Amino acid sequence: MNKNTHIWEAEVRDYEVDLQGIVNNSVYFNYYEHARHIYIKTLGIDFYEWHLKGYELVLIHSDVSYKGSLKSGDSFCVTTNLSLISRLKFAFNQQITRKSDNKLINVAINTATCINKNGRPEIPEELAALLLKIAVA
Amino acid sequence: MNKNTHIWEAEVRDYEVDLQGIVNNSVYFNYYEHARHIYIKTLGIDFYEWHLKGYELVLIHSDVSYKGSLKSGDSFCVTTNLSLISRLKFAFNQQITRKSDNKLINVAINTATCINKNGRPEIPEELAALLLKIAVA
Amino acid sequence: MNKNTHIWEAEVRDYEVDLQGIVNNSVYFNYYEHARHIYIKTLGIDFYEWHLKGYELVLIHSDVSYKGSLKSGDSFCVTTNLSLISRLKFAFNQQITRKSDNKLINVAINTATCINKNGRPEIPEELAALLLKIAVA
Amino acid sequence: MNKNTHIWEAEVRDYEVDLQGIVNNSVYFNYYEHARHIYIKTLGIDFYEWHLKGYELVLIHSDVSYKGSLKSGDSFCVTTNLSLISRLKFAFNQQITRKSDNKLINVAINTATCINKNGRPEIPEELAALLLKIAVA
Repeated sequence: MNKNTHIWEAEVRDYEVDLQGIVNNSVYFNYYEHARHIYIKTLGIDFYEWHLKGYELVLIHSDVSYKGSLKSGDSFCVTTNLSLISRLKFAFNQQITRKSDNKLINVAINTATCINKNGRPEIPEELAALLLKIAVA
Repeated sequence: MNKNTHIWEAEVRDYEVDLQGIVNNSVYFNYYEHARHIYIKTLGIDFYEWHLKGYELVLIHSDVSYKGSLKSGDSFCVTTNLSLISRLKFAFNQQITRKSDNKLINVAINTATCINKNGRPEIPEELAALLLKIAVA
Repeated sequence: MNKNTHIWEAEVRDYEVDLQGIVNNSVYFNYYEHARHIYIKTLGIDFYEWHLKGYELVLIHSDVSYKGSLKSGDSFCVTTNLSLISRLKFAFNQQITRKSDNKLINVAINTATCINKNGRPEIPEELAALLLKIAVA
Repeated sequence: MNKNTHIWEAEVRDYEVDLQGIVNNSVYFNYYEHARHIYIKTLGIDFYEWHLKGYELVLIHSDVSYKGSLKSGDSFCVTTNLSLISRLKFAFNQQITRKSDNKLINVAINTATCINKNGRPEIPEELAALLLKIAVA
């Protein structure tokens, strides 16, 4: 875990648990999204403000490995690292770990880009500068 | 059921079922919302277009009675009726019934209004006219 | 607010916000449910353990007033009080308040009972005793 | 598309749309899950019944490419193919396509296994036989 790793801690909410008695797979995507949004906010990037300016931060690819399951009552932490892949792509390396026994529950690489009003990938200067700060840190 | 009753039929999706093995309560609100939106669309009212014009159709009150539970594999129908309560309020009378045995699962009165850009209740002429058509029908 | 009031604090997650730019109505039910579950857990009542024992704690009625809206970035608190209504019914009086300006966003009375394996309302001794402790406190 | 391709058609529900005005990424996982469950049901495999017997059908990996976005009002179809990868793994090849213009919205390979009560991968005879029927067809 490098010094740029962002950590978000939370607990399972019972409505997130499905009929198998475990947190539904789609909920891990909710966790990852929330972790990404609060992470980039600490970097000065507000997901929703960029939307209002006409730039959409969107995922283009997810690679997800399900290693275990969270249950009712579990606390967990989501770690997030950001790396620049190319001029137009950046990847969030994310993991979900159960706190009670440090078990790795889920590992994902969520790759993103920024789309302008014409639907084309474009990372505006200001955003690029903020992202670059992390990458070189 | 009067001739203005709108019926939407669907089946339970397993991710909607929670750790008790029944559809989570909050999901009935999802069903009701979707039923309202497709109902008013048949009347020429597009929820999202009104949002883009600066008018928000919003709930102000819900009265909900939980009579039974839907489970994995159940098919159900949501019936919706609209009645005008006052110049600024309209009520959706909604019910969810399981199809296999016609059991009543949920009954709700969801009362709504329309909010303008200043955050004040206001039902524009055009919308009022569309709503009135139902009420007198 | 009496001394039995339970408070749960959290922040809006962006995936809870819908196309109107506000937290979707059904999400308030998620918040209320989670607040109830962690509240009764502090009283020694584990929702899921009772399920495994064959007793389902279920809502029978909700009365909900929508007073305002939460948005992306908002922090909020949910307050919960429990009162016994009858031998077989108890009510959760719940409110959601935005933290930045203390604005009341939502008020609800969520009435619950306990259902045994035969589908009949029954509150077992042990559960009744735990609930009664609050009521007389 | 081979003759074993399963197709599920549906329309976007407004509560699935997030503050960017597009269907939230996590919802595609809901769509895929529902499509898988109704597909395997047509093969005689009931996800929930196997859970009750002590066998959990679970995802172990997802590879997801986001090609476009669904919006309010869109109808879409989810296609699903099943292929056996090894004695203990099977893959669902899934796609989401918008109906109005046949645009490909999302492509995923969701790899699954079956876990027994001891938490070990095990595909019981009966289940293996049902899965094999597809693979050779």
